[in-house]
Amino acid sequence: MSPKITTELLKQLRQAMKSPKYVEEPVQAYIVPSGDAHQSEYIAPCDCRRAFISGFDGSAGTAIVTEQHAAMWTDGRYFLQAAHQMDNNWTLMKMGLKDTPTQEDWLVSVLPEGSKVGVDPFIIPADQWKRMSKALKSAGHDLVPVKENLIDTVWVDCPQRPCKPLITLDLSYTGVSWREKIVALRSKMAERKVLWFVVTALDEVAWLFNLRGSDVEYNPVFFAYAVIGMNTIRLFIDGDRVMDPAVREHLQLDSSLEPEFRIQVVPYGSILAELQAVGAGLSPKEKVWLSDKASYALTEAIPKAYRYLTPYTPICIAKAVKNAAETDGMRRAHIKDAVALCELFNWLEKEVVPKGTVTEIIAADKAEEFRSQQKDFVELSFATISSTGPNGAIIHYKPVPETNRTLSVNEIYLLDSGAQYKDGTTDVTRTMHFGTPSAYEKECFTYVLKGHIAVSAAIFPNGTKGHLLDSFARSALWDCGLDYLHGTGHGVGSFLNVHEGPCGISYKTFADEPLEAGMVLSDEPGYYEDGSFGIRIENVVLVIPAETKYNFKNRGSLTFEPLTLVPIQTKMIDVNLLTQKECHWVNDYHQKCREVIGAELERQGRREALQWLLRETEPLKVQ
Amino acid sequence: MSPKITTELLKQLRQAMKSPKYVEEPVQAYIVPSGDAHQSEYIAPCDCRRAFISGFDGSAGTAIVTEQHAAMWTDGRYFLQAAHQMDNNWTLMKMGLKDTPTQEDWLVSVLPEGSKVGVDPFIIPADQWKRMSKALKSAGHDLVPVKENLIDTVWVDCPQRPCKPLITLDLSYTGVSWREKIVALRSKMAERKVLWFVVTALDEVAWLFNLRGSDVEYNPVFFAYAVIGMNTIRLFIDGDRVMDPAVREHLQLDSSLEPEFRIQVVPYGSILAELQAVGAGLSPKEKVWLSDKASYALTEAIPKAYRYLTPYTPICIAKAVKNAAETDGMRRAHIKDAVALCELFNWLEKEVVPKGTVTEIIAADKAEEFRSQQKDFVELSFATISSTGPNGAIIHYKPVPETNRTLSVNEIYLLDSGAQYKDGTTDVTRTMHFGTPSAYEKECFTYVLKGHIAVSAAIFPNGTKGHLLDSFARSALWDCGLDYLHGTGHGVGSFLNVHEGPCGISYKTFADEPLEAGMVLSDEPGYYEDGSFGIRIENVVLVIPAETKYNFKNRGSLTFEPLTLVPIQTKMIDVNLLTQKECHWVNDYHQKCREVIGAELERQGRREALQWLLRETEPLKVQ
Repeated sequence: MSPKITTELLKQLRQAMKSPKYVEEPVQAYIVPSGDAHQSEYIAPCDCRRAFISGFDGSAGTAIVTEQHAAMWTDGRYFLQAAHQMDNNWTLMKMGLKDTPTQEDWLVSVLPEGSKVGVDPFIIPADQWKRMSKALKSAGHDLVPVKENLIDTVWVDCPQRPCKPLITLDLSYTGVSWREKIVALRSKMAERKVLWFVVTALDEVAWLFNLRGSDVEYNPVFFAYAVIGMNTIRLFIDGDRVMDPAVREHLQLDSSLEPEFRIQVVPYGSILAELQAVGAGLSPKEKVWLSDKASYALTEAIPKAYRYLTPYTPICIAKAVKNAAETDGMRRAHIKDAVALCELFNWLEKEVVPKGTVTEIIAADKAEEFRSQQKDFVELSFATISSTGPNGAIIHYKPVPETNRTLSVNEIYLLDSGAQYKDGTTDVTRTMHFGTPSAYEKECFTYVLKGHIAVSAAIFPNGTKGHLLDSFARSALWDCGLDYLHGTGHGVGSFLNVHEGPCGISYKTFADEPLEAGMVLSDEPGYYEDGSFGIRIENVVLVIPAETKYNFKNRGSLTFEPLTLVPIQTKMIDVNLLTQKECHWVNDYHQKCREVIGAELERQGRREALQWLLRETEPLKVQ
Repeated sequence: MSPKITTELLKQLRQAMKSPKYVEEPVQAYIVPSGDAHQSEYIAPCDCRRAFISGFDGSAGTAIVTEQHAAMWTDGRYFLQAAHQMDNNWTLMKMGLKDTPTQEDWLVSVLPEGSKVGVDPFIIPADQWKRMSKALKSAGHDLVPVKENLIDTVWVDCPQRPCKPLITLDLSYTGVSWREKIVALRSKMAERKVLWFVVTALDEVAWLFNLRGSDVEYNPVFFAYAVIGMNTIRLFIDGDRVMDPAVREHLQLDSSLEPEFRIQVVPYGSILAELQAVGAGLSPKEKVWLSDKASYALTEAIPKAYRYLTPYTPICIAKAVKNAAETDGMRRAHIKDAVALCELFNWLEKEVVPKGTVTEIIAADKAEEFRSQQKDFVELSFATISSTGPNGAIIHYKPVPETNRTLSVNEIYLLDSGAQYKDGTTDVTRTMHFGTPSAYEKECFTYVLKGHIAVSAAIFPNGTKGHLLDSFARSALWDCGLDYLHGTGHGVGSFLNVHEGPCGISYKTFADEPLEAGMVLSDEPGYYEDGSFGIRIENVVLVIPAETKYNFKNRGSLTFEPLTLVPIQTKMIDVNLLTQKECHWVNDYHQKCREVIGAELERQGRREALQWLLRETEPLKVQ
């Protein structure tokens, strides 16, 4: 990996920072955040501005360029990568280390008095703007919005914003029509006495209209905004996508609907002007509902007194609770996914053990190949983490030719992968050994398994927040002085983003929403030994009501049902470390894998994979 | 209980709200919070202003009086009590119910346009002021500080502020001299680049100077503030207490100390003027450190640009970590406390079973009597919760003649009590049955015990916050659909407040500080069945280093050592519900009670109580 040479680019950017063509007054610093205008986790190539200007293309990082300096803030996952990808023009700011200044403190220390700091108001979320602006102001500087994105002015071969065809989802997938979703949204709006709701997150637009796209890799979304009034629906979307007859029919664009369900299609780029017009037309007590993560530009379009901001939108919360059609779809998707993985692991056993010719990349490609054979397969749901030996200890590893290792009978292999099917999204991690694991490897694997089971089998009152379950996943590791440095679970979309709010299982947050039946999360404790191996066991699980002996205050209880049905390698388990209850959990789980996935393998005529499944799901002897 | 008649008082208060004698401009509403000028949890009689004006004397509540209305906000624990104690002039605002307005919303709904809302700036914490002021301002009203407390102007027989003698603690109790504490504090101040530190919490003043008082019932504190500079120490304290030769000697007031350790004694009432003088003399970049819970009055004395506010002060954090002398003292205090409780429970068995003449109040008094026989006993550490049968389900119950029940062989008895000894503070809950408990009562007790053990035996990494352990205490109850609606543990002072920050074990907070070896907390899960019984098992536990098989990232691990050594009634345990590990925990715990408390009972010649202890600590048969 050789660093990107950025001398010329930085020179051009610094010129743009002073050019009256782009800025009213020169800005002495320019901030380049990671995100796009929708605060997406995954972004399109045209939005990779920070990677373009610096060369550093990790998923998290913020660049700040001043007249003299160029600095990059990123976290521990990316210290090495950023150092390799950036040239000497850049200073790496290692977040999380004690001596690393915050962006605000650094700016204050390097800027001349009374400086202006520019940022694209569409890219920076309103809450971040507020914090940054306050800190700069108290030191005598000003954060100013720069309408034209200055990176775009120097990015001559910037890729076009994607504008791929849309996919319509009928009721058999979504369970609820977009009309019903609009009705439900308006009733939430009425409850909170707001007149307008602005949909800014891409997955929220997709969910609301029962549409999907492929503008962003892995995430079946498309670039759009929506503004919902009590009697109007405006969809901000570009290009000729809504010219597709199927889409027109789905959105009933050519039918004579009641006015409150007539969708006005408006160009994507006109959102700001339209929102400003909404803002200008408000009377006292009329409010506009926005996510507090919406961009500064859109938030500012609504005068402060008229804003109603919440951390989670009603769409985010409704989207998280899957209905019967969606959970059925998720189940189907996970069955297909398990078939693909049984094929893969069977193939790996045949290839790795005698031949030793399978690399991490080959294994990842093979996993994709098997998945793509399944019905309604669309694409992967994230970049496959296919890692063996020491690479397994790199939590966000993705094999590239420079790091690509060959799978062997001497190392632990960790595969974290998933797919988008039209009926659901999957995300599963299995950790395998193709030879004979050491006692220590088995011990660590078994602690991780105990943590996985502790969460999966947990029973807890309705209304419990996911973060209260996080310690269950760690308890067995903690008992032996071990731990893992990531959260335990994230929300999973329904043929949508593999990471979605508002629920999760992590010690890091307190602001997650309470768990409800119908929510779908991952359960993925791990253990990582730097330089040696990584272990993670991940299922996607569905929150379901639990039957309990008593029912305190009539609150009702919840538990989880695993949607992922892929064998957990029993060879890696030290049965002596499991309780009877845990042994039974493993055996019951494997019995279900046999029944459900066995039947599907049979149906698909995949005999060899079926034999593999039967071998791998032999019951543990309960002590 | 008949309500207090407040018609005349409210009339007088409303006159004061308009009187130029007290207010520059009339105030249309006056807020009467619960607290004192130090934001204490327990307050002196002269500070019970909200109780005086309304009649309602629960521990939590805020009164607001307008020209037309008088309203009282309190939480579910006190709905009944407040309704009984207040007359028709008052409207009860039931906090936690959906339709109850917040104080801000209610004020906005009842006040005429452009109103002024008054409050004593010494009583309201700065963070509450900020929130309230912002809400009122956005509705066109003003929150204004009223220097003279308006309740005091109508409270003709207001008790005097207590001014009791001080107790000096020598090194054998404190382990560290006040000089060393000042040195450590100044080094924390230097780290944060602050020039002044203002000590506002009463227990922080007491801890810093190794002094104790008895101005507030149950809390061995005295009314004082302190302002620590890099070269000066000012102690704001009233009366002739520092005339006591022992105190003068302890503080070295008459010695020729180095100037930076010379304590200037200043009148309690002059804190505001002195702090304003400090504030006026600051140069840019000179900062003053205050708790963000300090009163609005003191916070405002320092211009905003010079304030350094933190949720936990360095004294609060240092005080929480007990040194060897303090942990030794805590151990001694808990041994004496256990002796008293063995005597009590032995006495109860002899009295309750055959005679049936012991009431909740008699039992509480007897517990105090036995405690007072122990060396260095000072007073109780909180009002004893002595409750039998349905009264046990009232979590903050205190027996009074109207509710006083007689203990019997048919009901569960719950005793939550503690004391202040010169060497430590105790807080212990035991739940007993003097007859034959039902299978259901045993079942519930055993789940609570499992939760208690799960916390007490937990091993967790250094730096873990207490709230991450809360679910361990609930897991066994959750499995059966049960739960309890309070936190699991609070910090405990060392001959100081029985509730102290900055650590705790509760699902309700996220802002607790990480646990460290030397911290002392309670572990007190429970189960409460309204109208029937209450169960709670509470030990005070010390955070200690844990030996673990491995040591991930060299972080080290922690666990707890029970300081409380009082038998847990085995009659209440359903052994079939315990794991082997849990049985061993109970047996090991009881073995330690035998060894440590047995020896002390022997030494004190308390033979009958020793026999009771031996009977009660017979080992469980491990399944």
